[in-house]
Amino acid sequence: MSALRVAVLGVGVMGGYHAEALADRIAHARVTVVTDADRARAERVAKAVDARVESDPFAAIAADDVDAVVIASPGFAHEAQVLACLDRGVPVLCEKPLTTDVTTAYRVVLREAELPAPLVQLGFMRRFDTEYAALRELVASGELGAPLLLHCVHRNPAQSDAFDSEMMMRDSVVHEADVARFLLGEEIVAVTVNRPRPTREAPPGVNDPMLVLMETESGRLVDVEISGRSRVAYEVRTELVAERGSAMIGLDRNMVVQRPGGVRSERLTTGFIERFGAAYDAELHRWVRAARRGTIDGPGTWDGYAAVAVCEAGVEAVRTGERVPVRLGARPARAAA
Amino acid sequence: MSALRVAVLGVGVMGGYHAEALADRIAHARVTVVTDADRARAERVAKAVDARVESDPFAAIAADDVDAVVIASPGFAHEAQVLACLDRGVPVLCEKPLTTDVTTAYRVVLREAELPAPLVQLGFMRRFDTEYAALRELVASGELGAPLLLHCVHRNPAQSDAFDSEMMMRDSVVHEADVARFLLGEEIVAVTVNRPRPTREAPPGVNDPMLVLMETESGRLVDVEISGRSRVAYEVRTELVAERGSAMIGLDRNMVVQRPGGVRSERLTTGFIERFGAAYDAELHRWVRAARRGTIDGPGTWDGYAAVAVCEAGVEAVRTGERVPVRLGARPARAAA
Amino acid sequence: MSALRVAVLGVGVMGGYHAEALADRIAHARVTVVTDADRARAERVAKAVDARVESDPFAAIAADDVDAVVIASPGFAHEAQVLACLDRGVPVLCEKPLTTDVTTAYRVVLREAELPAPLVQLGFMRRFDTEYAALRELVASGELGAPLLLHCVHRNPAQSDAFDSEMMMRDSVVHEADVARFLLGEEIVAVTVNRPRPTREAPPGVNDPMLVLMETESGRLVDVEISGRSRVAYEVRTELVAERGSAMIGLDRNMVVQRPGGVRSERLTTGFIERFGAAYDAELHRWVRAARRGTIDGPGTWDGYAAVAVCEAGVEAVRTGERVPVRLGARPARAAA
Amino acid sequence: MSALRVAVLGVGVMGGYHAEALADRIAHARVTVVTDADRARAERVAKAVDARVESDPFAAIAADDVDAVVIASPGFAHEAQVLACLDRGVPVLCEKPLTTDVTTAYRVVLREAELPAPLVQLGFMRRFDTEYAALRELVASGELGAPLLLHCVHRNPAQSDAFDSEMMMRDSVVHEADVARFLLGEEIVAVTVNRPRPTREAPPGVNDPMLVLMETESGRLVDVEISGRSRVAYEVRTELVAERGSAMIGLDRNMVVQRPGGVRSERLTTGFIERFGAAYDAELHRWVRAARRGTIDGPGTWDGYAAVAVCEAGVEAVRTGERVPVRLGARPARAAA
Repeated sequence: MSALRVAVLGVGVMGGYHAEALADRIAHARVTVVTDADRARAERVAKAVDARVESDPFAAIAADDVDAVVIASPGFAHEAQVLACLDRGVPVLCEKPLTTDVTTAYRVVLREAELPAPLVQLGFMRRFDTEYAALRELVASGELGAPLLLHCVHRNPAQSDAFDSEMMMRDSVVHEADVARFLLGEEIVAVTVNRPRPTREAPPGVNDPMLVLMETESGRLVDVEISGRSRVAYEVRTELVAERGSAMIGLDRNMVVQRPGGVRSERLTTGFIERFGAAYDAELHRWVRAARRGTIDGPGTWDGYAAVAVCEAGVEAVRTGERVPVRLGARPARAAA
Repeated sequence: MSALRVAVLGVGVMGGYHAEALADRIAHARVTVVTDADRARAERVAKAVDARVESDPFAAIAADDVDAVVIASPGFAHEAQVLACLDRGVPVLCEKPLTTDVTTAYRVVLREAELPAPLVQLGFMRRFDTEYAALRELVASGELGAPLLLHCVHRNPAQSDAFDSEMMMRDSVVHEADVARFLLGEEIVAVTVNRPRPTREAPPGVNDPMLVLMETESGRLVDVEISGRSRVAYEVRTELVAERGSAMIGLDRNMVVQRPGGVRSERLTTGFIERFGAAYDAELHRWVRAARRGTIDGPGTWDGYAAVAVCEAGVEAVRTGERVPVRLGARPARAAA
Repeated sequence: MSALRVAVLGVGVMGGYHAEALADRIAHARVTVVTDADRARAERVAKAVDARVESDPFAAIAADDVDAVVIASPGFAHEAQVLACLDRGVPVLCEKPLTTDVTTAYRVVLREAELPAPLVQLGFMRRFDTEYAALRELVASGELGAPLLLHCVHRNPAQSDAFDSEMMMRDSVVHEADVARFLLGEEIVAVTVNRPRPTREAPPGVNDPMLVLMETESGRLVDVEISGRSRVAYEVRTELVAERGSAMIGLDRNMVVQRPGGVRSERLTTGFIERFGAAYDAELHRWVRAARRGTIDGPGTWDGYAAVAVCEAGVEAVRTGERVPVRLGARPARAAA
Repeated sequence: MSALRVAVLGVGVMGGYHAEALADRIAHARVTVVTDADRARAERVAKAVDARVESDPFAAIAADDVDAVVIASPGFAHEAQVLACLDRGVPVLCEKPLTTDVTTAYRVVLREAELPAPLVQLGFMRRFDTEYAALRELVASGELGAPLLLHCVHRNPAQSDAFDSEMMMRDSVVHEADVARFLLGEEIVAVTVNRPRPTREAPPGVNDPMLVLMETESGRLVDVEISGRSRVAYEVRTELVAERGSAMIGLDRNMVVQRPGGVRSERLTTGFIERFGAAYDAELHRWVRAARRGTIDGPGTWDGYAAVAVCEAGVEAVRTGERVPVRLGARPARAAA
C-alpha cells in the first residue's frame, strides 16, 4: 500500500514539528499539502518537507492528493476544519483543543457518532509516552488496589506574558485532565482552583502558580501544581497513590555529572518536544497506521470534549475561586472510545 | 558540671524512647525518676534506665533529684504538668501537643512569658533533622527567591482503628504545620481539608487519606497528603517550590539491591523512630545542653500554641469541609523564640 | 527521491529486528530482499516485511532492486559479503564483527580505502544512544579535563551454555572496546583479563564474570566487568573519571513503584533491544539517510578493525591470564572516519 | 557504674575528634588525659574537653584516672603504646594502622592472644556505618548467593603533596581492605596495582589514581579505584556482585535542589568526618560500653594485622607493578574475633 498523503493545517511549533516528523521519520506517510495563515511560514515548511502550499485549509481538506489531515491550526478554527474532514470522511489528528467550548465540542462528538468508525484522534501525546503507558498498565493490573489520589506537577520554565491564568488552564492543565481520565478511567466532575501568592515572574493579574483540584466520579482527588514560570525546566511528574502502594513517573533522569565543589547534577529536560518527542513520534506512527485503514488509534472526540468541559470549569474556577461542577452530555453509542 | 537529672513523665513509646536515650546515649544526662499511669510499665522502664518510680507526676516535678522534666504523658495532662514545671522553674521538653486546646495553650504562653527565659521546648523533632535544617538554611539564604508552595506527603503504613480523622490531624498533620511555619517563617492563617473517597483500609467514617491545604499570612500555600494506612512505609517528604527553583527532602534512600527478575529496590523506613532517630537524639542532646544552663534550644511555647491552633482549625475543617481561619492571640514580648 | 531498497542478509534476532524496523518504522527505506541459511526463517521474515527471498546472499547483493545491504549473517560470512558490496559499490550496515580476525579485517579496511568514499558502517549502536552521545559531548567539551579512567559494567541476565569466555569477549566486551575508543578518542594498546571464581550459573570452564582491563595509547585505563549470567537484567553502565569531575550513564531508571512491605522498586531493562531500541532506530535512520547519498554516517571499517584487534588480544588474554598487546596496522589515508 | 575515664593519645584531626565526641556526645565516658607531641595542641584540646595534659603517653597509659585508652598518635608510635596498654590490661581503641609493619603487628596479635579477653579494638569505623552493616547482613543472609566481585570507589577531593602512592595505600586503600574482609568473610591473598596516567593534580611521581585489585582466598576479586585528588568530594562507594543479584551502598544522596538553567543537583559529602560521623560515634558508643566491661566490641588485632599485611603487599605492588602475594602467620586461638 502506498504512503499516506497528509495535509498539515497550521505549521507553527506543533504543526511544523508534525510536518517534519511525517516527512523525515515516520514511515508510510508523506506530507503533500501545508497551510498556514502566515504564507511565508507555510512556504518555508512546504519546501522543507517537499509539499505544496494551499491558501485555504478547506481546499487542502478536499484535495485529491490528501488521504488524512493533521489539524494544528489555532483552536478557534478547529470546529469547522474537523467537521469538513468528517464530511469528506478523512482521518484526522487534531491537536487540542477539540474546539474552544463545550457546546461546539459536543456537536463534533455527535456528528462523528453518526459515522461507522471514529475518524478524529486527539493529540494527547502523553498516552503514547512509555511511562504513562506503564503507569496505566500498573493501575489496570489491579496490583496496587483502587487508586485514591493523583499528585501532578506541571511546570514550564517560562511563558510569554500573554500566557495568562486561562491559558495555563486550557494549554497546560488540559493535559493533566486527560491524564487523570486516562489513568483513573472515569470522568472529572468538579474543579477547584487555589490561587496562592504569585511568583514575581508572572505579569500582574496572572495566577502563577496555581493548585488545581479535580474530583472524579467515584470521589478520587487529583491535585495539580501548574507553574508557567518556574525558571527551571519543563517538569511533568505524576504520582498515583492507591490502596496498596504508589507509583511515580516523570522523574526525568539523565546523565549524572559530578563536578569540583562537590556537586552531583543532572540536566533536566527544558522543552516539551525534548520531553515528549518519542511520544509524539509514537502517536504519529500509530495514527498513520490506523489512518491507512480509515480509522484512529488513540484518544477520540469524547476525550477531546471531556477535556474542553474540564478546562471550561477550570477557567470559571480560577475566576471565582469556587468549586465548579463539570457537566457532560450523554455519551453517544458510536463515539470514539 | 554534673549530669542533668531528668524526670520522664509518661513512658509509652515516646517517653520510653526518650528515657532510654537519656540513659544510654545522651551525654551529661541521666534519668532519675519516671512516672506512668501504668505502674508496671513505669517500673519496667525505671529498672532499665536505673531510675526510681514516682506515682505522682507532680511529686516527680518537685523532687530534689530532678533538674529537668520530659513530658511524654497523654495530651490532656500537659497543661498542669507544664505549669507546675514553670512554677518550679525547671526546664521542660514537652512532647506535642503543648495542651489540647488553644485557650489553655495560650495561657501557658502567657505564663511562660512572665519568666526571664524560656523554659519549655516543644518536641518538634523534625527541626533537628539534618535535611529539614538544610532546607531551612537554603530558604533563608534567599538563593531560591521567595517560597511559593510547599508540597508535603506524610504517610504511615498502618494505624489502629482508633486513629480517626481528628487524630490524623492532631498527631500527624501537626508536624507538617510546624514544618511549614519553620520553613516559611510565617503563621498559618487558614486550613481547608479535602476528603476524597477513603481507602478500604480505613474504618468506616474515617477520612483516610486527606489532602489538607494551609494558607500562610503572605498567601503561600501548603498542601499535605496525610495517609494513615498506606500499607507501604513511613514516608515524610517535603518539596518547596520557590520563585527561582525548588528543593526536595525526605527521599529516604537506602542500600540499592538488584535481584533476579530484573528489579532494583530499596527498603523504605518503616517507623518514625527509625526515620527520625538521629533527630530525636540531636534534639535531646541540644535540650540537655541548654537545660543545664537553665533554658531551651529549640521550638518553644509559641510554636506549640500555633500548632494547637492550626490543628483545632483543621479538625473543624475535616468536620465541615469548609475553609477555617486560624486566629492567634497577640504574641507576648517574652515568649520563647 | 524514492525509498532505499535494502537487502537484509541474515534474519536472526538482529537481522530480523533491522528488517522489521526498516519495513515498519524507518522512513525512506524498504526491504526488498532477505536471505538466511534457514530458508523457512527467511520466508517468514520476507512475508512479514513484504520482500522476496534469495537463497544466495551474493545474488541479493547483486540484485537490481537492491540499493544497500544490511549484513547480519554469522561473523564468518562477513568478509566475503562486505567485499562483494564494496565491489558493487553499495552502502553497507555491517553488524559486528567486521570479520573474524585481524588479518581479514585489515584487508577490508585497505580495500575500502581505495574507494572515493566510505561505504561500510559498523553496527556499534551505542554511539547513537543519547546517553553515550551526551557523555562524548561532555568529554569533548573539555569541561571535565583529561579523562583518566573508564569504569564499565556489562551484564546479561542469562546466556546459553555455548556462550563461553571467548564469546563474552567477542560479543559483549567488543561494545565496551568501541565505547572506550569512541569516548576517549584513542586506540587501545593492551588487554588484561582477570578471572575470578566463576558463578555457579556458568558452565564448567567458562570464566563468568571477568574483569577486563584495557589500556589506551596515552595510558588511560578502562575496566570492564563482563557478566553473562547475572540473573538480574541487561545492565550497561559507564562511568568516566576525569581530572575535574566524573560522569555516569546507563542508570536505567524507570517508573518507581512502592509496595506493601516498604519496598521502593524499579523494573530494570531485561534485553538489549529494549535498552538500545531507540539507538538502533537512530542508527538505521541515519544510515538510510547517508546510504541514499552513497555513503555512511557512523563508525566505519577502521572502528570495526580496531574492535576485532582488541577482542583477539582479549581472547588470548583470557587464555593466558597475561597482559596482551594490541597491534594495529597503519591507518590508510582514505579509511572511513 | 561511673563514667569510663579515657586517655586520648594524639589529638590531631582524628584524636581531636574522638576527644570532643567522648567529652560532648558519648554517654558514660569522659576524657581525663590527653597527650600530643605538640604541647600547645594538647593543651588546647585538654581545655576544651576539661582534661589534663600528660607529656609522656606512657604516663597517661599508667595513670590512676585512666580506665581506657584511645590511640590516635602517629603510626610508628602504635606498637609500643598498644603493648603498654596490654601490659596494664586497659581496653584500647587504636586508630589504623595497628603498627607500621607485619612483623610488629603479628607480635601484637600474639601478645594479646595470651590475655583472657581481647583488649584492642581497631578504628575501622566503616563497620559501624549503617550501610556497610546492612550490606554485610544481606551477604550473610545468603539471599544473593555467593559473592563474586566487589567494586570499590574511594575518592578524596584533595590531598597534600606529601600524600604519595604509599600513603594512598596505607591510609585509604586500607579501609577497602578491611571492608572486603568484613563483607566477604575471608582473607586477601594477593594484591596487584594498575597505575594509569596520573591526574595533573598529582605531584610528580605519585600514582593518582590507581586501580588496585585484591584477590581473596576463594578467588573472589575486589577492585578499588583510589583517587586522592578528584577535586569533587569524599566519595566512598561499594558494589557487591553476587550469583543472584547485586547491591550498592555509598550513593551519598542528599537534599535535591533544582535551579534556573534546568539543573537538578545534590551537594556531596566533602569530608570523611561528615560522611562517617555517625559511624565514628556508634563505634565510640559501642567501644565505651564494651570497655566498661573490660573488652571490645568491634574489629580486633587480627583485623589490624591483616590490614597491615595487605597494605604492605600493596605498597610493593605499586612499586613493582607486579602481583604481590599476601602471607599471614597462623591465627592464634585467642586473638580477638
